[in-house]
Amino acid sequence: MFIVVNLKAYDCDPIAVATAVGDVADDTTARLAVAPQPTDIAAVADHGVETWAQHVDSIDSGSHTGHVRPRSVANAGATGTLLNHSERRRTLAEIDGAISRADDVGLETIVCANNPAQISAVSALSPTAVAVEPPELIGSGTPVSQADPEIVREAVAGATAIDESVSVLCGAGISSGDDVAAASELGSDGVLLASGVALADDPARALNGLVAGVHD
Amino acid sequence: MFIVVNLKAYDCDPIAVATAVGDVADDTTARLAVAPQPTDIAAVADHGVETWAQHVDSIDSGSHTGHVRPRSVANAGATGTLLNHSERRRTLAEIDGAISRADDVGLETIVCANNPAQISAVSALSPTAVAVEPPELIGSGTPVSQADPEIVREAVAGATAIDESVSVLCGAGISSGDDVAAASELGSDGVLLASGVALADDPARALNGLVAGVHD
Amino acid sequence: MFIVVNLKAYDCDPIAVATAVGDVADDTTARLAVAPQPTDIAAVADHGVETWAQHVDSIDSGSHTGHVRPRSVANAGATGTLLNHSERRRTLAEIDGAISRADDVGLETIVCANNPAQISAVSALSPTAVAVEPPELIGSGTPVSQADPEIVREAVAGATAIDESVSVLCGAGISSGDDVAAASELGSDGVLLASGVALADDPARALNGLVAGVHD
Amino acid sequence: MFIVVNLKAYDCDPIAVATAVGDVADDTTARLAVAPQPTDIAAVADHGVETWAQHVDSIDSGSHTGHVRPRSVANAGATGTLLNHSERRRTLAEIDGAISRADDVGLETIVCANNPAQISAVSALSPTAVAVEPPELIGSGTPVSQADPEIVREAVAGATAIDESVSVLCGAGISSGDDVAAASELGSDGVLLASGVALADDPARALNGLVAGVHD
Repeated sequence: MFIVVNLKAYDCDPIAVATAVGDVADDTTARLAVAPQPTDIAAVADHGVETWAQHVDSIDSGSHTGHVRPRSVANAGATGTLLNHSERRRTLAEIDGAISRADDVGLETIVCANNPAQISAVSALSPTAVAVEPPELIGSGTPVSQADPEIVREAVAGATAIDESVSVLCGAGISSGDDVAAASELGSDGVLLASGVALADDPARALNGLVAGVHD
Repeated sequence: MFIVVNLKAYDCDPIAVATAVGDVADDTTARLAVAPQPTDIAAVADHGVETWAQHVDSIDSGSHTGHVRPRSVANAGATGTLLNHSERRRTLAEIDGAISRADDVGLETIVCANNPAQISAVSALSPTAVAVEPPELIGSGTPVSQADPEIVREAVAGATAIDESVSVLCGAGISSGDDVAAASELGSDGVLLASGVALADDPARALNGLVAGVHD
Repeated sequence: MFIVVNLKAYDCDPIAVATAVGDVADDTTARLAVAPQPTDIAAVADHGVETWAQHVDSIDSGSHTGHVRPRSVANAGATGTLLNHSERRRTLAEIDGAISRADDVGLETIVCANNPAQISAVSALSPTAVAVEPPELIGSGTPVSQADPEIVREAVAGATAIDESVSVLCGAGISSGDDVAAASELGSDGVLLASGVALADDPARALNGLVAGVHD
Repeated sequence: MFIVVNLKAYDCDPIAVATAVGDVADDTTARLAVAPQPTDIAAVADHGVETWAQHVDSIDSGSHTGHVRPRSVANAGATGTLLNHSERRRTLAEIDGAISRADDVGLETIVCANNPAQISAVSALSPTAVAVEPPELIGSGTPVSQADPEIVREAVAGATAIDESVSVLCGAGISSGDDVAAASELGSDGVLLASGVALADDPARALNGLVAGVHD
């Protein structure tokens, strides 16, 4: 299982979360990563944990003031990037272009989408992975695997039918090891989560709870 | 073959084009439609020709000042709507939502996309049709069927693999009956065109040239 | 006083509202207008009442599929257009361009903004009028003239300091003649309203209530 | 004079430019700053030169995946941020909000705009500074001070009339000390430039040429 901790624009210490991720990563077979603000990518990556961007633009070099350049993100030490999170929806053309630009510089991609139909759609663009996150469940505390397990099953089936090499994550409301285990049983290859770890009093403890749900 | 004449924001008389479309439609097996400005949908539809919107928003009723309501478009007499034209790209979530809202009110949908991968993507959202239009050929005078026939073949194959019920149109640079015939031979079910008819001195003559390429 | 009834994307009959506006307009010194969906501009204008667009794009003629052309709006019979409503915020450059394109075709402009500072900003772009609408009060039933009269006073002072020829409207929560009278006393030249008339069981009665607050 | 070197998404070494800026800054009365990609802000600031962001979003803490948080930019060591660059235009409401959020965390702001009317508009939002950059001159090699000196004079007059405390920079096409001197003589308090330094074979030499135009 791949567990990505999205720090969003939270008022949290990215290095403290990175430290927790590093500690827990040593004792689990799960793959763990942190997605901080772009300003913090280099520091988090230097800390020795897998680091992801929350977004990159569909650009390479050039006159693109205020856009996030995939190559700069890669140079800062990121392994991959989220794309089209429901808080940062992009046009279809931009998603397509950003996947290509990320590929060019060796960044993996997780493209988020709202429902199984959109998951099938983005799977056709050859990302590394897709993540289904019903917007109404984000931050709800109710895991998608419990609120609507069929969404996860359909997303997995849809993505696989389009491109077997695309991994499928699920997100929204995941906060416990049971949620992670349920996501895995529904066919998901990983989970996206955010406040449950990023804003936890003890991020390492929260992560330990989550990885307890990971079975080889 | 389905021939859609997109009037964009051209300085043309929509009723004159509609008259030409009506005249030519009487003598061809091809299906012809006009996509005028939203302000002109009712007048064009009242003129007795098939009328399409150029865009609708992913909304139904409510507080959406300045957005184009699918139901108002349908009430004005439109049969369908273009979506995600390269001059009006939308987020994936908006394309998905607009298809659903259009379905709700009985509007057909043609979702435009730039390349075969994006055509596969939008085909997963269950539109009525998709249209592949390489942005670099729009308005170029060089038809996609000639500049890059493989794009049309791949778009047809990709869309069909996802959903056999989705029609595939192609656009960009189409101006003659030969272009229409070539598009048809490549597997396309129709063409999108714009300035070649909308800005022609004699739109009926331009259309007659185009439908000469339609073979049953 | 200028009273603009914004029909948004409401599920209402634009001709029924137009009829009510026409009836009431005959018996008041207030200036009344209706802002329907773009598809309904021609029908409402043909009905003989002053008609406004809810939005136009910063374009003139050309390849702008899915955008609303100011000249088409004017040709359909509109007198003016709202711009930058809080439900359709535009970039500063687009607001500036749309005002110019509207001017070119003889459309008046009312540019909406959220607070007095933004009202001063848009007043510098030489629109016909500005409208201050605190987003949190839109649809609240509490008029801005009551919830925060200082916002209206500051908007009037700010706009006038920048350009004395710019009229100032206020909006959000206005539903009675008292609200209109209060808006006028605070220095406002008109009001924007929406559901209070558009969704009223009896729009003419709602309008009569509003114009009762207009004193020469 | 304030000289801001915008690194855009250029394929350049931000530390090499920062080194040049640091060297030149020691020998001039001009204030020099570098605006790198967000991923490079911390490294450039740690290098000891004044560092600016190219963009921040109108957010503080919270669920804003993929947005650039002003506080994170400040924490990384930035002094200020560009806003509304013509390559990253924002809505009026977002510019207003981003200035406030930047103020909250002690970031200075330079709001870009296309013409004097827009400069007056953004000056009403109380930024630290404004920058007038005619889009058609960006990257042209022809300085605005030469192509259209009246634009700079009008921008200075317009901004000052609205808020005397707002500084006025100009940009687009500036590449020599003469251009900087001309900008200063037209009343400008600084210049924005990009490729002339960022992509120079010898950035220090390019900067020395520019600061030669600065007279106390």
